[in-house]
Amino acid sequence: MGRIPTNPALLQQILTAFIANEVRKVSMERVVVGLSGGVDSALSAFLAAKALGPEKVLALKMPYKTSSKESLEHADLVIAATGIQSLTVDISPQIDAYFARFPDADNMRRGNKMARERMTILYDHSARWQALVLGTSNKTELLLGYGTLYGDMASAVNPLGDLYKTQVWALAQFVGVPRPVVEKPPSADLWAGQTDETELGFSYREVDELLYLMVDQRYSPEELCAAGFAAGFIDQISRRIMNSQYKRRLPVIAKVSQRTIDRDFRYARDWGR
Amino acid sequence: MGRIPTNPALLQQILTAFIANEVRKVSMERVVVGLSGGVDSALSAFLAAKALGPEKVLALKMPYKTSSKESLEHADLVIAATGIQSLTVDISPQIDAYFARFPDADNMRRGNKMARERMTILYDHSARWQALVLGTSNKTELLLGYGTLYGDMASAVNPLGDLYKTQVWALAQFVGVPRPVVEKPPSADLWAGQTDETELGFSYREVDELLYLMVDQRYSPEELCAAGFAAGFIDQISRRIMNSQYKRRLPVIAKVSQRTIDRDFRYARDWGR
Repeated sequence: MGRIPTNPALLQQILTAFIANEVRKVSMERVVVGLSGGVDSALSAFLAAKALGPEKVLALKMPYKTSSKESLEHADLVIAATGIQSLTVDISPQIDAYFARFPDADNMRRGNKMARERMTILYDHSARWQALVLGTSNKTELLLGYGTLYGDMASAVNPLGDLYKTQVWALAQFVGVPRPVVEKPPSADLWAGQTDETELGFSYREVDELLYLMVDQRYSPEELCAAGFAAGFIDQISRRIMNSQYKRRLPVIAKVSQRTIDRDFRYARDWGR
Repeated sequence: MGRIPTNPALLQQILTAFIANEVRKVSMERVVVGLSGGVDSALSAFLAAKALGPEKVLALKMPYKTSSKESLEHADLVIAATGIQSLTVDISPQIDAYFARFPDADNMRRGNKMARERMTILYDHSARWQALVLGTSNKTELLLGYGTLYGDMASAVNPLGDLYKTQVWALAQFVGVPRPVVEKPPSADLWAGQTDETELGFSYREVDELLYLMVDQRYSPEELCAAGFAAGFIDQISRRIMNSQYKRRLPVIAKVSQRTIDRDFRYARDWGR
């Protein structure tokens, strides 16, 4: 059975070159990244520090008043280990101002509003600091749709979007992300004790093996069953991918012309020059 | 010389069917749209009201404290003419809470933050009301990059994205958008007296003719010159399209696998089922 390849030395080389190229291509020098205290944003920050130099990387810590203190401490470990610049912007005043109007909003709405508020602050600092917004969504999250559209899923360039969580862990360890950050249970930190794996109902290692065979290796459901995955799990994940497709695409535009944006007008060559 | 086609009866038919299909396809019944008081969002709201019935359309008015009173009055004309539902959410508390921290921010940063705050409120109401967010960006704005990425450019479905501003005006008149809304000079209403055409430095009718020949009809620069456009204008617009390409695409993901999101993994058929 196919195993997810982890070649951290090669991945580091490709991804640091990617960041450096994407930034220079648009005549910029800097990136800005939101540091949550988790392993994904820590890895993005480490790669950017290696690619551009730590003085060209601005880490934003954007806690809400209920965010765990441990998350901030973990973000600080990353800042200390890389020497990148940092700034803390508390999102509580904006979030509380909005939900004062809608006090009955549930945790899901609050969490999504916070993720989007953080995006708006990253983009404001992109303008303020002439820096590209560095993405932190990994391939597992993107395929499962486990993230906020136009929130944490939004960025200019994303070095992690083609790495499964399993690969993120391996690469994070390789590049020297502090152990407490690599080893803690992944969490969106929306409420005390929340963990991704409890919320999802399966472990990342388990689903990564399935996603890799299903998506990268194009196994059929029958082949996945033969490889030892339960039919119900295969079906559940397959439906999750399908139902979250809207988070991985641009707004759907009604086509009424010969050349429609994101349809016939998509690439540099589409300008006809 | 080719002229931009405006067949409002046909456009109305296609675009109302588009809205109805997109909404039902995801087992929803409703849309939510931000009404700025301008002609684009007015047209989107009119088309949605025709497609779904006015009770299935929620218009959000999201003024900032410096927004013009006229904009709100124009939004109210649209609400009255269509019979759609409406709600006002003042964005001033959230915006002021944020910029208290960054008082030296210029108008551009403030305007972009406001556009993104409005997006977050539309998406919160998308969840609150089980409704799709209806886009209001037209093809002229999208090609020129004259809008806020992850702000007004973000939506679930956009009926106007393939219509030039010239076509928006013609269709808006046809479907009965109130005359003051159709006839006023377009403005993002970021400061008193702002108009799009002054800020852009050319008129929409002028640039639409150029964009139509350049993009839809694939005229070469030489052919555009022969059609009467100044070489400097052709070059200026051509560069604007190129430099704003990043606003018309998804985050750039570093490719390190066989199947990368938005590269080899893009469509329903990419699941291999």
